[in-house]
Amino acid sequence: MERIDYLADERKKAEFNVDEMKIVWAGSRRAFEVSDYISKLVADDPGFSKEERTMLPRKELFKNTLRKSACSWKHIIDLQLSEEEAERLRYFVDEPAFIDSHLGVFIPAIKGQGTKEQLKKWLPLAYKMQIIGCYAQTELGHGSNVQGLETTATFDPQTDEFVMHSPTLTSSKWWPGGLGKVSTHAIVYARLITDGIDHGINGFIVQLRSLEDHKPLPGITVGDIGTKFGNGAYNTMDNGVLRFDHVRIPRDQMLMRVAQVTKDGKYVQSDVPRQLLYVSMVYTRQELVTYASGALSRAVCIATRYSAVRRQFGSQNGGQEIQVIDYKTQQSRLFPLLASAYAFRFVGEWLKWFYTDVTQRLQANDFSTLPELHATTAGIKSLTTTATADGIEECRKLCGGHGYLCSSGLPELYAVYVPACTFEGDNVVLLLQVARFLMKTVSQLSSGKKPTGTITYMGKIEHLMQCHSDVEQAKDWLKPSAILEAFESRAARMSVACAQSLTKFDNPEEGFQELAPDLVEAALAHSQLIVVSKFIEKLQQDIPGEGVKQQLEVLCSIYALFLLHKHQGDFLATGYITSKQGLFANEQLRALYTQVRPNAVSLADAFNHTDHFLGSILGRYDGNVYPKLYEAAWKDPLNESDVPDGFDEYIRPLLKQQLQTARL
Amino acid sequence: MERIDYLADERKKAEFNVDEMKIVWAGSRRAFEVSDYISKLVADDPGFSKEERTMLPRKELFKNTLRKSACSWKHIIDLQLSEEEAERLRYFVDEPAFIDSHLGVFIPAIKGQGTKEQLKKWLPLAYKMQIIGCYAQTELGHGSNVQGLETTATFDPQTDEFVMHSPTLTSSKWWPGGLGKVSTHAIVYARLITDGIDHGINGFIVQLRSLEDHKPLPGITVGDIGTKFGNGAYNTMDNGVLRFDHVRIPRDQMLMRVAQVTKDGKYVQSDVPRQLLYVSMVYTRQELVTYASGALSRAVCIATRYSAVRRQFGSQNGGQEIQVIDYKTQQSRLFPLLASAYAFRFVGEWLKWFYTDVTQRLQANDFSTLPELHATTAGIKSLTTTATADGIEECRKLCGGHGYLCSSGLPELYAVYVPACTFEGDNVVLLLQVARFLMKTVSQLSSGKKPTGTITYMGKIEHLMQCHSDVEQAKDWLKPSAILEAFESRAARMSVACAQSLTKFDNPEEGFQELAPDLVEAALAHSQLIVVSKFIEKLQQDIPGEGVKQQLEVLCSIYALFLLHKHQGDFLATGYITSKQGLFANEQLRALYTQVRPNAVSLADAFNHTDHFLGSILGRYDGNVYPKLYEAAWKDPLNESDVPDGFDEYIRPLLKQQLQTARL
Repeated sequence: MERIDYLADERKKAEFNVDEMKIVWAGSRRAFEVSDYISKLVADDPGFSKEERTMLPRKELFKNTLRKSACSWKHIIDLQLSEEEAERLRYFVDEPAFIDSHLGVFIPAIKGQGTKEQLKKWLPLAYKMQIIGCYAQTELGHGSNVQGLETTATFDPQTDEFVMHSPTLTSSKWWPGGLGKVSTHAIVYARLITDGIDHGINGFIVQLRSLEDHKPLPGITVGDIGTKFGNGAYNTMDNGVLRFDHVRIPRDQMLMRVAQVTKDGKYVQSDVPRQLLYVSMVYTRQELVTYASGALSRAVCIATRYSAVRRQFGSQNGGQEIQVIDYKTQQSRLFPLLASAYAFRFVGEWLKWFYTDVTQRLQANDFSTLPELHATTAGIKSLTTTATADGIEECRKLCGGHGYLCSSGLPELYAVYVPACTFEGDNVVLLLQVARFLMKTVSQLSSGKKPTGTITYMGKIEHLMQCHSDVEQAKDWLKPSAILEAFESRAARMSVACAQSLTKFDNPEEGFQELAPDLVEAALAHSQLIVVSKFIEKLQQDIPGEGVKQQLEVLCSIYALFLLHKHQGDFLATGYITSKQGLFANEQLRALYTQVRPNAVSLADAFNHTDHFLGSILGRYDGNVYPKLYEAAWKDPLNESDVPDGFDEYIRPLLKQQLQTARL
Repeated sequence: MERIDYLADERKKAEFNVDEMKIVWAGSRRAFEVSDYISKLVADDPGFSKEERTMLPRKELFKNTLRKSACSWKHIIDLQLSEEEAERLRYFVDEPAFIDSHLGVFIPAIKGQGTKEQLKKWLPLAYKMQIIGCYAQTELGHGSNVQGLETTATFDPQTDEFVMHSPTLTSSKWWPGGLGKVSTHAIVYARLITDGIDHGINGFIVQLRSLEDHKPLPGITVGDIGTKFGNGAYNTMDNGVLRFDHVRIPRDQMLMRVAQVTKDGKYVQSDVPRQLLYVSMVYTRQELVTYASGALSRAVCIATRYSAVRRQFGSQNGGQEIQVIDYKTQQSRLFPLLASAYAFRFVGEWLKWFYTDVTQRLQANDFSTLPELHATTAGIKSLTTTATADGIEECRKLCGGHGYLCSSGLPELYAVYVPACTFEGDNVVLLLQVARFLMKTVSQLSSGKKPTGTITYMGKIEHLMQCHSDVEQAKDWLKPSAILEAFESRAARMSVACAQSLTKFDNPEEGFQELAPDLVEAALAHSQLIVVSKFIEKLQQDIPGEGVKQQLEVLCSIYALFLLHKHQGDFLATGYITSKQGLFANEQLRALYTQVRPNAVSLADAFNHTDHFLGSILGRYDGNVYPKLYEAAWKDPLNESDVPDGFDEYIRPLLKQQLQTARL
């Protein structure tokens, strides 16, 4: 049967080589090939179908996820997939599951915090899945503040054991993925107590369930914490609750890379720098930036394709209505998100490089770039995850009413994505950490220390405090130098203004708390500068493919000018631009939307998402939306019968005026 | 058993009379009493429990809603509730259901569009629920553009019948609430065709299902359109799909108040002004503003109470951590939403008055204020629903990780609320309608016609184009006159700037399309001015109760200054304020947060929401959050057994390395 491509006309309009753009998006030809291979492998296996997901009750949904996890693992083994390929496979299966916690958090935590002996003992078990583990840090009453955790691990020298205990209700472990129903083991973070002294938080490997019958071991209460936002979304994951009633574990199950407790109960810190532990947190945040571009690109792909399919108003002489994508209001909401997806992709790529660079330095005992990495990752994680969550919802709204149907894929995408704004550091708390870094940077400027890396611009602070935009017409805003100076000057001025306000407080910490909302804005300005500047740097590279670089230049300008318009108040208030120059930016933005329009569908195609991965009827590659929406509706359980369950009990008595005698 | 109020200390801090504030919030003592009585009636009836809602599979969820609807109707009859009380009851039952469409849309549509004879025939049946109806307008391929509907109603003079037909797939009716499984009748909007002539869209009463066995009648295909965003949310509603295959209905089932078809097929328009029909759409939008304040107040109440319960960081000497509500970052996100809830409440109250005033004029054939009502309602509906949807999500994020649990009530509140941004007019399309009104107003300024009502300010356009803020210190921003002039001047300047840009286009409609994003911003500025000015007007009334007015003054200032800060770019770009004055506004805002802080919990209490209505463990009145969260977790179906379904098939084979032989 021949398939009709209802978007073929749109695809013909492209002014660039889509295949080459796919390589740029993927990062390299090899990365493209791996993703392309694995995503199609998953899409072609009916066992990974996502069609039913939003309709299954929790237990069936969960069971189905267990099946998919086992299938994934079988593929990984059968095809002898590399770690990278295995990660891609889980990514394309696209369903949060215990296996993510096991491979993505439990194993890395052992690697990062275990001694050589511990690695030798636990890693083979974990790699083979003879044990399944999770990462039990947060508690019912304690989230971001790790130092506030209440669970205790008290050393008993008599038996050479630790006693794990949950002293209060609020000390119950709460949220860890994979904990509720599947994990046999957990890395538990607890206050280490020896001889009555509290040494702070450390990790411990604790067995939770019998390896025979999977029942919780004595002294352990474990379960699922209940339904979460969305239909399928994270309800496929057994986020768990865990309580200990004086559970004993051998001393050697304390993770001892950084500190150890000796047989006689002495607490000894090793010479391994604590910063090394800290880096794993940074690693996870850095990964979230890549996932942000992935998630946003899915929403944008769906909204772009459907905006080209959908028509509304403007019919003349009985002809077709206008494609929604031709409306400027649609373009002004959609195209900045398309540009953001690319921007986040490139800043994520750069951040990965930066992370690798810093960890290599650490191994040579050079800690100098760690604070910058920490601040940069915090800022970019915060910026990209917030913008992505908001962007997915915006894309859903851009699809009109149909975006509210689960078959659009967008509700599910939002619900599964949005926790990224909260986990691995609340996005506002993270921006405050960036702000601390910025305030420190500003305070050191007078010391003559030359700022490097992402804060190099602070080195020309005197210029940035005084300069003015030299834009004289709309198209001057296309010059990367005009954009860069604007963002640098805005970020610098906002940081300096905060630093000056802080000096008015006797107690600097009190000032920091009082001015926190302003500091958050300054941190965001700095983070946006990084994203913009990394996009510009990307375009200074050699990028092959007909028209590819030109398209990216347009997107880069859209991203920057969209931010400039959105935060116009900052640019005006700091005096860098005049309101006339602001109007030029807006004018240029409109012209850029017109340039993107014919390329929009192809720019979304370049993400190379399979229909399986998108999981959206509105976003189907072939644009065959309405027949498929209609078809999908009939699969709802409510349509199993013409007359719904409950008709006899609750509707007939209404219609027949027999409510008084009805059993309700 | 004595109940402990964990928020008692917070409540002691209140500097105003909470009971009096409850009256202000409700609108009147009588409104308060009705709401208080009905909300408690619902809360006390275990049949209306919402606890299971987010865990039930679709069919059970739907059946449960049918039961609740029947229970509601029984209460309404047994207690002989008035229409107003019945509406309150459905509101507090808090679950979208067919009964809402029947009472809220089907009956009003007959009333508005039927002739006297039609009212006499159909209303008694509908009032007694001998028939159940819905409102079938939108189609699979047609949303906002009613003129684009494809369903046809072709008159057959031979039989004196209309033939209802769905000529294409995209003409399938799609979305109507109550259509899928329950409605026996529908008001169907279709192209009226007589003698080959298309007379445009008209409404028809069509029976869909047998009143005996509830089966769809011949020629009718009807079903549910499938799962929607969220757990319970709108999945309790049978939004439906409907197709006609040449279904015949008697001629007198065409709603004939405005136009009729005679026995011999002549199309005759009545002398009833079409504007009267149009007013029912305005009525619904006006109601959505009231619902916006209701929904936002729920989210704010939950987030405020939990922010007072939750503690994080800042523990000194082993003492308790700091209440989250004491952080400025929390205050700067939460308190503007608290203020917005009150602002929306008051503008909704005013809009109801305005609506009544205009309809009274209409009855006297005075149509002069109708365009203003239309524009105002469109703008305020758009502004309040967008801000409420975003505000609910913000409140959810302000609750940290636990906000993601369904037991927080917030995911459900968001998913059930957010369609308000799309239905009854997409929020961006509505702002464009406001913009058309504004452009017309500006173009008529030179004609000497004096603008009245919400556009009175345009009458002093020359002053508003030139004036500058006279604020010299932070507290000057507390003066209502300073705020009003700022918002008036910003709105006026943005409208005039758009009008000037439009003159550069030869084709005004083309210009309107091209500048649409700017026009949307101007319309929003105008709508915000209305909300701010109606809050200020409210405070010019006599408001009894110790400290009540003072609190409202603080909230009014917060709402206005929060907007001023958020849209600082507009105020600066139009030259009305200097950046220094912008800083003063921000400074004053911080001071106001400090003033609200001790009153925050009591200001949330003043909404008088029952724990049942809130449906949130985080927002419990007594603040007893953690034990109840813990308790609720165990009710999840996944916790019915220690070892999950699927363990033997999908987990044991992993652990035992028997994946190769497992049946997956």
